Amino acid sequence: MTPSTPSPTAPLDTFARRHIGPSPAEQRDMLATLGLDSLEALVERTVPAAIRLERALDLGAPVAESALTERALKMARQNRILRSYLGQGYHGTVTPAVILRNILENPGWYTQYTPYQAEISQGRMEMLLNYQTLAADLAGLPVANASLLDEGTAAAEAMSLCLRSRSGGKPGAFFVSEGCHAQTIEVLKGRAEALGIEVIVGDHRTLAFGGDAPAVFGLLVQQPTTDGVLQDYSELTARARAAGVHTVIAADPLALTLVASPGEMGADVAIGSMQRFGVPMGFGGPHAAYMATTDAFKRQLPGRVIGLSKDVHGKPALRLSLQTREQHIRRDKATSNICTAQVLLAVTAAAYACYHGPDGLRAIAARVAQLTAALRAGLRGAGVTVPDGPVFDTLRVRPTDAKAVLAAALKLGINLRDFGDGTLGVTLDETVTSADLRDVLASFGVAHADVDALAAAADTGLSALARKTPFLTHAVFHKYHSETEMLRYLARLQSRDLSLVQSMIPLGSCTMKLNSTTEMQPITWPEFGALHPFAPADQTEGYRQLFTELERSLAEITGFDAVSLQPNAGSQGEYAGLLVIRAYHRARGDLLRNICLIPVSAHGTNPASAAMAGFEVVVVKCDSHGNVDLADLEAQAEKFSARLAGLMVTYPSTHGVFETGIKSICEIVHRHGGQVYMDGANMNAQVGLCRPGDIGADVCHLNLHKTFCIPHGGGGPGMGPIGVKTHLAPFLPGHPVVAGVGGEKAIRPVSAGPYGSASILPISWAYITMMGAEGLKQATQVAILNANYVAHRLDPHYPVLYKGEHGFVAHECIIDLRGLKATSGVECEDVAKRLMDYGFHAPTMSFPVPGTLMIEPTESESRAELDRFCDALIAIREEIHTIERGEMPRDDNPLKNAPHTMDVLVVAEWKHAYSREQAVFPAAWTRESKFWPTVGRVDNAWGDRNLICTCPPTSEWAGH
Amino acid sequence: MTPSTPSPTAPLDTFARRHIGPSPAEQRDMLATLGLDSLEALVERTVPAAIRLERALDLGAPVAESALTERALKMARQNRILRSYLGQGYHGTVTPAVILRNILENPGWYTQYTPYQAEISQGRMEMLLNYQTLAADLAGLPVANASLLDEGTAAAEAMSLCLRSRSGGKPGAFFVSEGCHAQTIEVLKGRAEALGIEVIVGDHRTLAFGGDAPAVFGLLVQQPTTDGVLQDYSELTARARAAGVHTVIAADPLALTLVASPGEMGADVAIGSMQRFGVPMGFGGPHAAYMATTDAFKRQLPGRVIGLSKDVHGKPALRLSLQTREQHIRRDKATSNICTAQVLLAVTAAAYACYHGPDGLRAIAARVAQLTAALRAGLRGAGVTVPDGPVFDTLRVRPTDAKAVLAAALKLGINLRDFGDGTLGVTLDETVTSADLRDVLASFGVAHADVDALAAAADTGLSALARKTPFLTHAVFHKYHSETEMLRYLARLQSRDLSLVQSMIPLGSCTMKLNSTTEMQPITWPEFGALHPFAPADQTEGYRQLFTELERSLAEITGFDAVSLQPNAGSQGEYAGLLVIRAYHRARGDLLRNICLIPVSAHGTNPASAAMAGFEVVVVKCDSHGNVDLADLEAQAEKFSARLAGLMVTYPSTHGVFETGIKSICEIVHRHGGQVYMDGANMNAQVGLCRPGDIGADVCHLNLHKTFCIPHGGGGPGMGPIGVKTHLAPFLPGHPVVAGVGGEKAIRPVSAGPYGSASILPISWAYITMMGAEGLKQATQVAILNANYVAHRLDPHYPVLYKGEHGFVAHECIIDLRGLKATSGVECEDVAKRLMDYGFHAPTMSFPVPGTLMIEPTESESRAELDRFCDALIAIREEIHTIERGEMPRDDNPLKNAPHTMDVLVVAEWKHAYSREQAVFPAAWTRESKFWPTVGRVDNAWGDRNLICTCPPTSEWAGH
Repeated sequence: MTPSTPSPTAPLDTFARRHIGPSPAEQRDMLATLGLDSLEALVERTVPAAIRLERALDLGAPVAESALTERALKMARQNRILRSYLGQGYHGTVTPAVILRNILENPGWYTQYTPYQAEISQGRMEMLLNYQTLAADLAGLPVANASLLDEGTAAAEAMSLCLRSRSGGKPGAFFVSEGCHAQTIEVLKGRAEALGIEVIVGDHRTLAFGGDAPAVFGLLVQQPTTDGVLQDYSELTARARAAGVHTVIAADPLALTLVASPGEMGADVAIGSMQRFGVPMGFGGPHAAYMATTDAFKRQLPGRVIGLSKDVHGKPALRLSLQTREQHIRRDKATSNICTAQVLLAVTAAAYACYHGPDGLRAIAARVAQLTAALRAGLRGAGVTVPDGPVFDTLRVRPTDAKAVLAAALKLGINLRDFGDGTLGVTLDETVTSADLRDVLASFGVAHADVDALAAAADTGLSALARKTPFLTHAVFHKYHSETEMLRYLARLQSRDLSLVQSMIPLGSCTMKLNSTTEMQPITWPEFGALHPFAPADQTEGYRQLFTELERSLAEITGFDAVSLQPNAGSQGEYAGLLVIRAYHRARGDLLRNICLIPVSAHGTNPASAAMAGFEVVVVKCDSHGNVDLADLEAQAEKFSARLAGLMVTYPSTHGVFETGIKSICEIVHRHGGQVYMDGANMNAQVGLCRPGDIGADVCHLNLHKTFCIPHGGGGPGMGPIGVKTHLAPFLPGHPVVAGVGGEKAIRPVSAGPYGSASILPISWAYITMMGAEGLKQATQVAILNANYVAHRLDPHYPVLYKGEHGFVAHECIIDLRGLKATSGVECEDVAKRLMDYGFHAPTMSFPVPGTLMIEPTESESRAELDRFCDALIAIREEIHTIERGEMPRDDNPLKNAPHTMDVLVVAEWKHAYSREQAVFPAAWTRESKFWPTVGRVDNAWGDRNLICTCPPTSEWAGH
Repeated sequence: MTPSTPSPTAPLDTFARRHIGPSPAEQRDMLATLGLDSLEALVERTVPAAIRLERALDLGAPVAESALTERALKMARQNRILRSYLGQGYHGTVTPAVILRNILENPGWYTQYTPYQAEISQGRMEMLLNYQTLAADLAGLPVANASLLDEGTAAAEAMSLCLRSRSGGKPGAFFVSEGCHAQTIEVLKGRAEALGIEVIVGDHRTLAFGGDAPAVFGLLVQQPTTDGVLQDYSELTARARAAGVHTVIAADPLALTLVASPGEMGADVAIGSMQRFGVPMGFGGPHAAYMATTDAFKRQLPGRVIGLSKDVHGKPALRLSLQTREQHIRRDKATSNICTAQVLLAVTAAAYACYHGPDGLRAIAARVAQLTAALRAGLRGAGVTVPDGPVFDTLRVRPTDAKAVLAAALKLGINLRDFGDGTLGVTLDETVTSADLRDVLASFGVAHADVDALAAAADTGLSALARKTPFLTHAVFHKYHSETEMLRYLARLQSRDLSLVQSMIPLGSCTMKLNSTTEMQPITWPEFGALHPFAPADQTEGYRQLFTELERSLAEITGFDAVSLQPNAGSQGEYAGLLVIRAYHRARGDLLRNICLIPVSAHGTNPASAAMAGFEVVVVKCDSHGNVDLADLEAQAEKFSARLAGLMVTYPSTHGVFETGIKSICEIVHRHGGQVYMDGANMNAQVGLCRPGDIGADVCHLNLHKTFCIPHGGGGPGMGPIGVKTHLAPFLPGHPVVAGVGGEKAIRPVSAGPYGSASILPISWAYITMMGAEGLKQATQVAILNANYVAHRLDPHYPVLYKGEHGFVAHECIIDLRGLKATSGVECEDVAKRLMDYGFHAPTMSFPVPGTLMIEPTESESRAELDRFCDALIAIREEIHTIERGEMPRDDNPLKNAPHTMDVLVVAEWKHAYSREQAVFPAAWTRESKFWPTVGRVDNAWGDRNLICTCPPTSEWAGH
């Protein structure tokens, strides 16, 4: 409110005033409404004095928008884009420009939230259904999910799936082929270790079942292997099945357009990365991994599954199915802690598949294979040793002098894979031209090769393994092959989904703030997008500088000493943080410490992560204000003192309050030898005002996709780096391929990429750099102001639960709807659906308290938008009053019938107790700008009973 | 249909198959419907054998999409972006990223057509009303238009305006201050010469009126002058007014936020470039110029004016007002030939003004002025001679050694203006930082200047001229200052406008084809956007290579010998081409040749352009098939043989037919010493099949925004380069500032920028390069196929007028609705409006024949979309049948009440003779994806009677 006077020459395109919604004058008005005269006064009444940071963050002055772009460009240009034929699960790809611009660079797509509110999310769910169909079809398996985080974690999830389906007893061992990518093996080993599973890495051809062989419950092989070998796994899977062992095949989806599918080869599960379907490598991520399974696993699939159900009018409608499997229900019994998918990337990959269609994909794959065969022929002609057998994209070859070849390639601007044993790997991709191939051959000493002639004559040998089954036969993969048709399809889908582009999405604990364009622009620059994660360090100096600056800023903001950027989702951050705690205790010989205390109010991911990290969860009570019950905590800590590994605590609490006892909480845990894990979901209330490290936390994860402006992408990507105190720094996760990642005693990687989803990190870096210390602090203050303003306006209409000792909430507020059921029959969901008719996305429903709505407006929402939202909720309360007064039937009112679609409105005879106008134009602004839900209320139960998770025959569903 | 077999290594991201809608299989089906077996057979029946090009165009092989992007990037990087403080009407500016991404990079905005169909164009018209308000407010004048092409042509239009308002007699002279930009003076002189107006350039301070002074009807001065002088013109305008002389002030809009406005100083007209309001310099264009006037001129304003009217329900509704002023009505009596505005750029500038608001704009301007004053102080301290007086952004200074300063500046990466007389110009802008200013001072030998101190102490002297009137007081300039609010405002406006993103826009003679992303991407790269048009040649080599390649391609495609890229609209191309013909005759001493023959069917711009070029128009008859009446042509040519300057002819004809007599037409004109001007509006039917130059044309303009994929931008920008035969090449237009532009005997420039709207030329270059000869030819074939397919489907329902001798149309078809009035009361407009309910934009209405629709589907539309469109028109014909049969009243039917809005649908009591469902869901696809017109049918007459062309008080209009 009182920024320092800028110099007359200071640039004027400052960012904080664009990021923060209310103007200074509006802030003053809003404060006055609350009886306060400054933001500082508000902070004094919300953040306990004992933890307040009484100095400015040491982050340097804010950088103006155009200066930021220049700085980002300079950084980007320190990355050198060579042609990386390094393979290992990361490949050059051509993102069709129409998809790049209209999805990845389009706020209408990237600012969407997770599709919990199905009626206003049908567009992206259709594309995700396409994605599931793509995965299932390519895999030759009937069921697929809407993506996982990466191939490494997908393999780990597959292992858990096999384990869960096993019957009783000790876990036993999981077999992993040595032909898998190194990072896959390491991620899987890390996951296995915490769960007490032995991992056997070996040659699958010598794997025996029964008899003296070690008991395995599942196995993982890869197609093609990391060094390019393609094989028929049918015999292996048959033997495994006979022994009651499940087979997982990690398969390259592009190869599967030519090669017999995992399903045909008898796999139970197929996984892999869909990156090369149009998603830039991005120095390691984000990309979508796929998982497809036999029908037997369909109700155990980890992650999100889109299912086709119907709405209340019987119209086909998509939804997130099988939500009961989620952590917030199953908590520490959940077999996976994954909360999200890589929606934006899955959408991109599915759009890529729609644009190319099966013939186009096959042509791309066939060209890659033909180029690889040509390369083999060319190398052989020059005396290089190359194995026989079918080839797709990768050759592992033994030249006479590998070092000389590597150097020659580098000189020509090409990265080849060095196996370190005198052999080299070359993996070709969609982007390779004949000139590129000539250069590769030249690196091996084959000058002026006639690659066209080589390609025309070469034999891939793939006919032996040829795929015989069709795929992508659904119309959606055949209609949108011209750019105009694709553009319109994307626009049509987009128009069905509410995003931040339409109105605020006040999701408690999800921090749906502005994802500004200046922050977003760099991520689709080739200098950030086209880098292979295993490219030599001297080619990636821009990224490294970015990481250094971002780590430093995050450490300063959180009060920690070291940061790992590896976890590529919030859940991964939790898991990584807990593994670090585990490693710390073990390193000290504290092998007994396996109890993790978790308050009852915690988000379900907390116990799920704790269980995955090998901890036993003990629940701590909360008092009636939603605060941790200190007496119970003390008792539990005392009881489990010798076994106490740590506590997981969210701050401000999941009830939206700065607990005053937080320092005591940390002190109690520390006193008993435990470590404090702070969940960073609510970090947006702390930045610049207090710091987890100062409060007493030893480790904390940060949802960069909440507090630090990475967009939600419709349900991913996220990023969940962790900050730790010095004593935990040595254990930060490492990486098997990239040196210099993690601490000296690094735990195994938690993500496939060394730096998680590297290519979206410029967003958070840009945000912090443009805001500076002053802007960040002001953002937090206004986030708290906005929440209190909303709470103040709504309290007379819906009681606000859980306030702090001075009567203020933190950055979010919970309104109580529980009384309405009795007086009017109205439930929380009815209000949520009715909000759609007013053009709004519902707040978080029934978390942490059933029957409530948790509202987090964030600092980016203007006063006008807050008022509009409050007006909507108040108007809905008035509608409820009419039910309470008996003026409107309990079973026929605007809430019970919400949301109202165009279809409903157009009927000749209107049979409701309220008018058409009240149905669809309940507020003046809806006449100026109406967002239409495309389906009526979705039938969840029907959808769960009748799981349909791939595109149905068009005749059954006119949804396209 | 039979492309050559590509090599196995050829890239697969080829473009033609993405650009062309129907797949090869669909093309075969469609041909079969027409009774044909190949595209070649279709061409044989449509294009006369005598003119068919029997060879492939010499354009090289097509380049794949990703390869094109690489090539464009390489070209772009040959442009060197220095800091250009060259002024002269072009300034660095910061385009807010949210505006860049969501307008300039958003097909939802850039693929819109001109807002002739008001009901589905309310969004951009609101922003254009904002633009008009911006122009009017800054100018201090009550009326403004929706933009003109550039400052130079705006000055010329202002001169015409002054001329028109003068009463009778010889035109007399127009006075132009020598303080105007050189290109403004030259464009104006060129325009004046053709109209027989004398231009007097001089010092306005010595300008006298009456007595012995030359009689002037108007005068133009500039604020600030090209060398930075700001002055009070009040005394001058008072003297002029007293003498019955109109004053035009060309004023920098940013300066007007600080300085008293033209209106306050007594000007009748204000013009200027709105470029520095967020529109990149783009090496000269496109930008929006503004024109504001006193109320007296409001019905004579050139270009487009958005006016506020009301719809049939009384709801406020925007529309293009005063359409009766247009050339297609007034033809050679029109005072301007301008058909378009720079809508996309005007929208950008208006959004910039909304985002900053008056305070933000003033702050930007004040900072520029303060920096300039600081520079003055710094230079004076170093002994450089700098004039006194108020300063805004420009200083003209006399250093001791100008050449040394220029060189030093260049070394630091700065371009300064060299006046050539030992003085230098420095013009600062929004992008200048304190480091930049230090560098400028360093160029003058002032090392390590403390620019902050200088800026703090410096005096701009502006208080003497300070603006005292408020501006931008309307709420729209105060509500959208956070990025979130701006984003939503843009999205809201966008959602009201139908564009190619929703459905085909089958506008006859407008060629609304795909504007592909790969074509569009380069134009917002800084390497194309940030270049000053007067930057030294060695900094613009990328652009020059682009021009060379594009000129060469266009020459080959058209069969001409030389091309000028300068005309920045189709109308400008016509005008330039005619001036070239005029100059040719004059150079040969043929001073009498001033007759221009124009067929009666010609687009109204033709006679308007001819009149502007100083020709007398003689109309040639057409026969009943819409072809030029050869006998009448022969007679007229004979009659005017000695005075014949030329003929303007459109080919294929405006009736959509390849006239077989075209060669004879050209021959007749040539025989009588005339030149043939071919209107290139229908070039999309010719590319690769025949060439204007081969047919006999001497000059032709090309609408790059039609045939060559520049998007229509909602009504501009366009580009209208001309191609000429060798004998006309010496006369191609030159430029006063940039050397090497135009022929040896160059006519004066027709546009302010040397290469017109340079920054959008990459679009056409990319299109031609990606399509290659084969792709371009195929596109033309399919354009003809699509038109014939539509004609074939519609003919049984609506008679198709004008077919060629074999019964086929060219690339468009005209359907006849004239009979319906008598049988049903339905008029052309009713069908056009009813199409909106089906989700379509109407075809061209009543041109060239009243009561008809002219449909041009273009090659980019898929068969599915063509069918959908035909289905809609056929269904509408069925609706008309119900009226004809008396089943539906003549005055209450879905056509007369179209378009139907949500407001109409929601009323409780439905009083129409048809159902709600039929009203808004007349076809199955509208249920899947409904585009809603936001207002009912607009009352045009009311709007023209009550012209409101700036934002009304919000209370009167809830449109925001």
